Amino acid sequence: MRSPADRPVDQTGLRRLNLSRVLRALRVDGPQSRALLARRTGLNKATTSSLVGELEQRRLVRLGEIVSGAVGRPSQPVELRGRTVCGIGLEINVNYVAVAVLDLTDQMVFSKRVPLDVVALGQVAAMDLLADLAAEAIAEVRDAGNWVTGVTVAVPGLVDTENGIVRHAPNLRWRDASVVERLVTRLELPRERISVDNDANLSALAEHAVGVAAGATDLLYLTGEVGVGGGVIADGRLVRGATGFTGEVGHMPLNPEPAPCGCGRSGCWETQVGLAALLRSVANFDDRVHDSALDLEQRLRVIASRAADGEPRTRRALAEIGSALGIGASILVNILNPTAIVLGGYFAVLGEWLVEPARRELSERVMASGSCRLLLSDLGFTAAVRGGAYAALDRVFDDPSIAPLVAPAEVPHLGGIA
Amino acid sequence: MRSPADRPVDQTGLRRLNLSRVLRALRVDGPQSRALLARRTGLNKATTSSLVGELEQRRLVRLGEIVSGAVGRPSQPVELRGRTVCGIGLEINVNYVAVAVLDLTDQMVFSKRVPLDVVALGQVAAMDLLADLAAEAIAEVRDAGNWVTGVTVAVPGLVDTENGIVRHAPNLRWRDASVVERLVTRLELPRERISVDNDANLSALAEHAVGVAAGATDLLYLTGEVGVGGGVIADGRLVRGATGFTGEVGHMPLNPEPAPCGCGRSGCWETQVGLAALLRSVANFDDRVHDSALDLEQRLRVIASRAADGEPRTRRALAEIGSALGIGASILVNILNPTAIVLGGYFAVLGEWLVEPARRELSERVMASGSCRLLLSDLGFTAAVRGGAYAALDRVFDDPSIAPLVAPAEVPHLGGIA
Repeated sequence: MRSPADRPVDQTGLRRLNLSRVLRALRVDGPQSRALLARRTGLNKATTSSLVGELEQRRLVRLGEIVSGAVGRPSQPVELRGRTVCGIGLEINVNYVAVAVLDLTDQMVFSKRVPLDVVALGQVAAMDLLADLAAEAIAEVRDAGNWVTGVTVAVPGLVDTENGIVRHAPNLRWRDASVVERLVTRLELPRERISVDNDANLSALAEHAVGVAAGATDLLYLTGEVGVGGGVIADGRLVRGATGFTGEVGHMPLNPEPAPCGCGRSGCWETQVGLAALLRSVANFDDRVHDSALDLEQRLRVIASRAADGEPRTRRALAEIGSALGIGASILVNILNPTAIVLGGYFAVLGEWLVEPARRELSERVMASGSCRLLLSDLGFTAAVRGGAYAALDRVFDDPSIAPLVAPAEVPHLGGIA
Repeated sequence: MRSPADRPVDQTGLRRLNLSRVLRALRVDGPQSRALLARRTGLNKATTSSLVGELEQRRLVRLGEIVSGAVGRPSQPVELRGRTVCGIGLEINVNYVAVAVLDLTDQMVFSKRVPLDVVALGQVAAMDLLADLAAEAIAEVRDAGNWVTGVTVAVPGLVDTENGIVRHAPNLRWRDASVVERLVTRLELPRERISVDNDANLSALAEHAVGVAAGATDLLYLTGEVGVGGGVIADGRLVRGATGFTGEVGHMPLNPEPAPCGCGRSGCWETQVGLAALLRSVANFDDRVHDSALDLEQRLRVIASRAADGEPRTRRALAEIGSALGIGASILVNILNPTAIVLGGYFAVLGEWLVEPARRELSERVMASGSCRLLLSDLGFTAAVRGGAYAALDRVFDDPSIAPLVAPAEVPHLGGIA
């Protein structure tokens, strides 16, 4: 098999690759001296200093406080600059739209979630609403004098990432939605810096970067929303498949009851464990947990408090969902053998009552038992927007030369110190 | 995420990496001039010539016939040497043990399959039989004056590849079988050149290298044996998971009937579509297709001929199995989004009657319909042994410096020609 290392690169490509190496080393290992950066990246010291100089001029890194160690010369660490550069993540789901802005060090700068009946709103109006949110976030960043790397939108459905089109999002009732094209006409950003991706993929990226299973080389993220999607990371990389349509786990035919699904079939796993199934099984339709004008987290808190009080119907429903969750998850663990499954969305909020029955099924059904941890996400409903912002930031980590050069006078250059 | 290109290497490591690049370029793109090799690998011409010289001395490559082109100087292609270097693959399954020897150009040099009741034989005796077969193949290679890169054993079960132990192979009734240790004591080969791996993983490697879906970046191989295993290739690489236990697809709880499975549970997918299910559903137990003294392929030919004659019980059984195969495969396609599913083992032999009902289920159930082809392997029951031999050969492609240096006098050196 051909590995990426086999591909030759030209001089400009090499410079870009080396800028990217240095910037990524700072992201992964934190602030460090140029000497250490050189050792870690395998580049020589002169090249490393020159690369750091260029990254400073692009406002991506800065030199920190000089540190006097016990031995050797004092050293001045290089660190990521933070606020000056931001990535924007958007999310659209059945019950809400949301936005998050992360800076270069993954700190949340701005975030917002709006409860909404997206199906009732319709495909075009919903895309315009996303554009409004994006424009608001971009203005926020630019008004502070900072630079936007790009925008990535998370959608629960099959996404043609190359062409920026949502092919099919059953629970939103979307088909062939040209999300990127719509945003391009509304935002002052070049097309190549706007993208759309599957929400579970982006959430998996966020979990891998900053979540409870951060750094796990093999992890599976499950979205607990109306639809249940999966994001797969194998050997440290997102598995995208042949056409970008991996992780469609919600439609495994596991429900013994012929319950109708948003996809048009019946008996899909998400008709047992999706958010709609949860709401239906815990309370009658006149109960306030069905009130879509209330924020979703508020409705889930009502369910959590009933479960904590031992209310029988709620407890029984959660035990059944936990068990069905474990049966489906065991199929995925047997196929993918991850170190961890991270449960997101409502699964995380109500995890206290879902995890035990789920673990029971996993331990009975997983062939390589004991190899996989079942964890609750601590990113709540922000995993997908964070992942979107993270993916938007990735553009500048992949190619730091897209960041604008500022006049050298603006940069306090100290140089020469290792 | 950290890519392999981020890892620094030292000087010796770099030489080894470059030897490997050149050797792999010849494997992937065939015979070519040193000038073209230099261009393809991104190395300079002097380095490339020096690397080719060393590969010649290790009997891994040779210089071919001088070719006079229409323009430019005549060029002499470098090519893989073939026979002088061989890899050995072994396989153990419920009904047989097998061996295959491939040379450096993936040509089959020697192969053998012995029908056998492996469960009755027992774990230790079966491992000794594998050692006998391996010793026979090694003698075959060495008697011809050639060099063995290594031995890889394919087993239908959970394999701890790092420690060379089969943790659990339900259908063989094996637990914690120290295959590598057993072979080390019997074979004149260093331990690090003997390994054991899951049969579906190795078959997937073989299909990716030389099969009907060769070169597909995302493919899924399904073994049609007593057990049904999956080998997953994503973005050109085998997915091994956290502990090497991926592709355990046979135990998805899909059979509505509570049929008992080799794993101790019931209702597993392989109780519907595995070889035992096939034999049981096509004929009564006194029928000759159940006679384990006959070679498996012979028994399958009987079934194929009955199906061709339109025998109703056989046709009905195959249609039902094909449909169950499609239902399970659709789950896998929705998760992994491969370009192709390659059906191996008995699925390939009886594919003519299985593929149509399977395709029907796939087209109904796959979310990204039309994106995945369902193909029949043309490697028959040799996929796993070939994959084993291929993996054994990979050792020398990964690190050509393990091949013995021969005295320079033995190598006809022509040098200097681009």
